[in-house]
Amino acid sequence: MSHPPQFAADGRLDHLLTLDGLDAGQVNGLLERAEQMLPHAHSGTALRGRHAGRTLCTLFFEASTRTRSSFQLAATRLGMDVLNFDVATSSTKKGESALDTLKTIEAMGVDVFVIRHASDGAVAELAAGANPGTHVINAGDGRAAHPTQGLLDMLTLRQHKGADLSALKVLVAGDLLHSRVARSDLHALRALGCGEIRVCGPANLLPDADTLRGCRVIAGFDEAVRGVDVAIMLRLQRERMEQGLVASLEDYFRDYGLDPRRLALAAPDAIVMHPGPMNRGIEIDGAVADGPQSRVLAQVANGLPVRMAVIDALLS
Amino acid sequence: MSHPPQFAADGRLDHLLTLDGLDAGQVNGLLERAEQMLPHAHSGTALRGRHAGRTLCTLFFEASTRTRSSFQLAATRLGMDVLNFDVATSSTKKGESALDTLKTIEAMGVDVFVIRHASDGAVAELAAGANPGTHVINAGDGRAAHPTQGLLDMLTLRQHKGADLSALKVLVAGDLLHSRVARSDLHALRALGCGEIRVCGPANLLPDADTLRGCRVIAGFDEAVRGVDVAIMLRLQRERMEQGLVASLEDYFRDYGLDPRRLALAAPDAIVMHPGPMNRGIEIDGAVADGPQSRVLAQVANGLPVRMAVIDALLS
Amino acid sequence: MSHPPQFAADGRLDHLLTLDGLDAGQVNGLLERAEQMLPHAHSGTALRGRHAGRTLCTLFFEASTRTRSSFQLAATRLGMDVLNFDVATSSTKKGESALDTLKTIEAMGVDVFVIRHASDGAVAELAAGANPGTHVINAGDGRAAHPTQGLLDMLTLRQHKGADLSALKVLVAGDLLHSRVARSDLHALRALGCGEIRVCGPANLLPDADTLRGCRVIAGFDEAVRGVDVAIMLRLQRERMEQGLVASLEDYFRDYGLDPRRLALAAPDAIVMHPGPMNRGIEIDGAVADGPQSRVLAQVANGLPVRMAVIDALLS
Repeated sequence: MSHPPQFAADGRLDHLLTLDGLDAGQVNGLLERAEQMLPHAHSGTALRGRHAGRTLCTLFFEASTRTRSSFQLAATRLGMDVLNFDVATSSTKKGESALDTLKTIEAMGVDVFVIRHASDGAVAELAAGANPGTHVINAGDGRAAHPTQGLLDMLTLRQHKGADLSALKVLVAGDLLHSRVARSDLHALRALGCGEIRVCGPANLLPDADTLRGCRVIAGFDEAVRGVDVAIMLRLQRERMEQGLVASLEDYFRDYGLDPRRLALAAPDAIVMHPGPMNRGIEIDGAVADGPQSRVLAQVANGLPVRMAVIDALLS
Repeated sequence: MSHPPQFAADGRLDHLLTLDGLDAGQVNGLLERAEQMLPHAHSGTALRGRHAGRTLCTLFFEASTRTRSSFQLAATRLGMDVLNFDVATSSTKKGESALDTLKTIEAMGVDVFVIRHASDGAVAELAAGANPGTHVINAGDGRAAHPTQGLLDMLTLRQHKGADLSALKVLVAGDLLHSRVARSDLHALRALGCGEIRVCGPANLLPDADTLRGCRVIAGFDEAVRGVDVAIMLRLQRERMEQGLVASLEDYFRDYGLDPRRLALAAPDAIVMHPGPMNRGIEIDGAVADGPQSRVLAQVANGLPVRMAVIDALLS
Repeated sequence: MSHPPQFAADGRLDHLLTLDGLDAGQVNGLLERAEQMLPHAHSGTALRGRHAGRTLCTLFFEASTRTRSSFQLAATRLGMDVLNFDVATSSTKKGESALDTLKTIEAMGVDVFVIRHASDGAVAELAAGANPGTHVINAGDGRAAHPTQGLLDMLTLRQHKGADLSALKVLVAGDLLHSRVARSDLHALRALGCGEIRVCGPANLLPDADTLRGCRVIAGFDEAVRGVDVAIMLRLQRERMEQGLVASLEDYFRDYGLDPRRLALAAPDAIVMHPGPMNRGIEIDGAVADGPQSRVLAQVANGLPVRMAVIDALLS
């Protein structure tokens, strides 16, 4: 799909809609800015003057408390005012279009929108309708993209494996078909020149070839995990079973769940990631989720500096 | 209905419950204060010290995210703390009276309440039960009044047509019967000495004669719109059709929808207003809503300085 | 049930989960700190720098707008950022455990959690899973405890009857069986050496003997109220009637409702308390609720300095 350009001619960021098409310099620029935010991400008031008086609105057409909270805290730590706009109780229920909702809130003086929407491309469409000077961050659209999750995954990876990914083997496993996180991770891993990107999951939960370009698809999970430096596990939506895409959750765990035995096949210093919320006993064993190689909570923590960096890049 | 006096003997504002009965000086005083707020309404931190440490509570017995958001941002820009009290999930569901809910929150140290309620006069009743020193703003009660919407409509009109309304023709069109916005607009237009106030709508959606005092009722919409300087279009609640008050939305649009052909009958520099959320293709054509004569987003933007001004007047 | 120790070896408060087991010095220490907060509780910005940059999250697995609002304002007045996490729309609905939810939010940099949960002991379990340095306040767990309500009741009592409770007669009346407020009040009254603790209620709404240790159970309400200095009335959940525990609300009011006739049996300067929301005409007569001996709104007002004091004690 087409969407408004994200970077202006002078290299400044106007919107963050997808990581698809970004180059290594652009991705690394955001990651380095995130590293500068890190000391201020979890406490302190040093940056409260940085964007004081600017307003960020979380506009969620699909509920997600944790992502919304992460953006809310990130904006607060930069001194911004935050408006949480819950579409479930808003005028859209009275027949108003999503764009009219955005234009209305924009007229109240909002500088940055953080938008989640159930449809692929809906956030880019809204960004195309925003005024110049209004910035849009995609907090997840359909199956298409969740770029700040992709960035925080890359920051986590960089913290443990360094900035050069050319020698790394990274596995993305599970229900890639429905996952915007997987797509944004693949976009970022390709942009950063990851040595080997492996994917593994049930055949009917794998996306099309273009989505998987540059990836090595491996059918068996034991084989896929062998020797990897990073395993990114994806959430299995329980409704996949009702839809007949998965025979049973027990079978899924047996075939595609990351348990201690399988993790032992990976590189000894491999790390395990998961975007959350986790289904323990379905795609990941509790012992792995809580084990020493898990970086699940580090990912959450990295959400703050990454989101601060993206907001800061938009407003600078 | 009776309600507590809004202006104290010394001319200070205690509550804003309705524009009914205000004189031109009182309305213009609030509009001039709003104009002083305008430079600080959409950004900046210049006024953050003005009412710092004071608390505003939005207490909505009827959901309305956009009005609540506008008040929230207005209070934030004056440095206030804001508490959003969603009655849908509150103790009133446990059998507590609305007044007990207000008194409870008041005891937490709230200075200003912004209240919306489905019943005519309910906000004035709550104001009558508040402590001296607690201020109440009516954010819409039943069909009766929505005074800050009336004020922001007058500010919009003033910005485009000047402060002297004596030579203006203003049309209020659509479902006036159920509209608190229409009532507050009529209150304000009369107070400000508007030259000619026209109203037009289906006969069964027009209010009683007292509500329409001083207005010229015109049956045909073409005739009504001819030569007007301002057309204020009202939202048609879709449930009116279910109630049998409107035959079909198509008929309604044909008879009472503002489309480009009809707008061409108005004065060449006429402006179009709508309180939102708009029903495109029902009371207003999309081309008019988005056209150069539309002031719909300007109205939303004016909500901020108007609400800042009202809060400031209450606390000064 | 067991829970993590609340006070560290050096006397500092780590969590506030229950008042059970606290000694008079510990309770009085918190009440004295609350008295210091009092001048800053309802306005003013003097304490905004005190915990600026720290974050408090209200994590409510059971809805309660008034308690959440009181904590929100208390934290705001200490300069903290506040995150309201509504579990009804959160990931826990996607199968995530309560502890995973807490750990995720904790990773975003939250310093203090205020948790309400429907199950006895659930808050203590979550506190046991939190990182060292993360503080948990129990905002009500099942029937077990609501310690800040107990403290604010004691502050109210202290303001009217002085710090020495050894000569006081205090009645706790109504549905004690299901009441966490009653339990926390009994814990505090025992800790502070209250002269006589009376309890009165329908036999099938009284808790076990251990909960009532040190109390004088009086069957008839007239007899129970005679000569008391303080009457703490408890809310009757309307669903108790549906459960067959109460024959009718009329009978309940006749047998256990505090009306003016009964209040006249108490000490002439007796005060009446109720945790709210009140059922007028069920456990309390409207004339008593609004009468000169009622301290119901003073209790609400005291919620702020008490909660500020507890937060301050945790972070100091």
